[in-house]
Amino acid sequence: MKLYHSTSSPNSRRVRVFVAEKGISIPLEPVNLGEKEQFSDWFKAINPRRQVPALVLDDGTTVAEVPAIWRFLEETYPEHPLLGSDATSRALVTMWERRAELDGFAPTMEGVRNAAAGLKGRALSGPHDYDQIPELVERSKRRVADFYADFDTHLEQVPFVAGAAFSAADITALVTVDFATAALKMSIPDGSRAVQRWYETVAARPSARA
Amino acid sequence: MKLYHSTSSPNSRRVRVFVAEKGISIPLEPVNLGEKEQFSDWFKAINPRRQVPALVLDDGTTVAEVPAIWRFLEETYPEHPLLGSDATSRALVTMWERRAELDGFAPTMEGVRNAAAGLKGRALSGPHDYDQIPELVERSKRRVADFYADFDTHLEQVPFVAGAAFSAADITALVTVDFATAALKMSIPDGSRAVQRWYETVAARPSARA
Repeated sequence: MKLYHSTSSPNSRRVRVFVAEKGISIPLEPVNLGEKEQFSDWFKAINPRRQVPALVLDDGTTVAEVPAIWRFLEETYPEHPLLGSDATSRALVTMWERRAELDGFAPTMEGVRNAAAGLKGRALSGPHDYDQIPELVERSKRRVADFYADFDTHLEQVPFVAGAAFSAADITALVTVDFATAALKMSIPDGSRAVQRWYETVAARPSARA
Repeated sequence: MKLYHSTSSPNSRRVRVFVAEKGISIPLEPVNLGEKEQFSDWFKAINPRRQVPALVLDDGTTVAEVPAIWRFLEETYPEHPLLGSDATSRALVTMWERRAELDGFAPTMEGVRNAAAGLKGRALSGPHDYDQIPELVERSKRRVADFYADFDTHLEQVPFVAGAAFSAADITALVTVDFATAALKMSIPDGSRAVQRWYETVAARPSARA
């Protein structure tokens, strides 16, 4: 098994942190996004969607898309569960991880891709070219602000995003905060004390350096 | 267990078709979106995100978000698996279902919500109000056209979206085609023969009437 990834890709980091939490080791193969290596013939043969991360199994099967890679790793290495430990908690991790992605991670990415000069004509990743829409940048920032506020209300009631235990939902939320801070200059607002308390806990885990 | 849903909600249909494929029966509780019942106090207490579908378990836990509801049902009723049958197929169903959602279902929804006169100020579902962005309507339609084309190439090689077996990925793709046809007037293009062949097969299943 090999993980194609990039150190500059927040989606790749979602998988690297997951792997670190599992305590396993998977050979990493870098894809240089700065040099547009994701559009090269060799990488398109691995993932026609031209996206990292992509996990290539020993039989040559490519598993792409973060939740799909996680699902494979969780089943293959069930110790230290990160997707829940029974039917209800697995459903709740799926729900909260998805909310962190749709409400936090996705608008952060949308804000970045619709603004960056180097991504003109590439507002969406994948095989097709779409023009940037400047109006989306401001809307994305409002959505990230709403994410911080909603998330703060939620984390006033529970220690981790999906409830009592650390899970993949925390990984997506952690990567979102770091990505929004670095790329949109939107760090955790001063008043969001529950998010700050949660962030200090999860960012202190050794996996956060992955 | 009870499923809060609406007959006018394509996301609700993704769950109803899944339930029908399982051959199980879950009491349905209608939420009248036309009368904005999702914003009522009683429904916000069930799902603060104000969205259907929402599955309420016997202990009162709410599971919202389609993939989370599916995950709970699949584990509770493992017969007739719809999320794959081993680690690799479960990863591939997750991957292809997500692609059908992100490339097909989501742009269809985006095209509808940014255009409908009745959804002014409500371009995104959920607890926050966001203005419509007219430019997104045209981009969404281009994305749906690209989805049909990509999907046709894929279905030239495999009988079902995730490969050899019918799965939840087919459910999302089926609901997308019907939704795009009804709401964006974008039915399967004449040249997309593989999509047409696939659609005839899946739309003929009794579950498609759910």
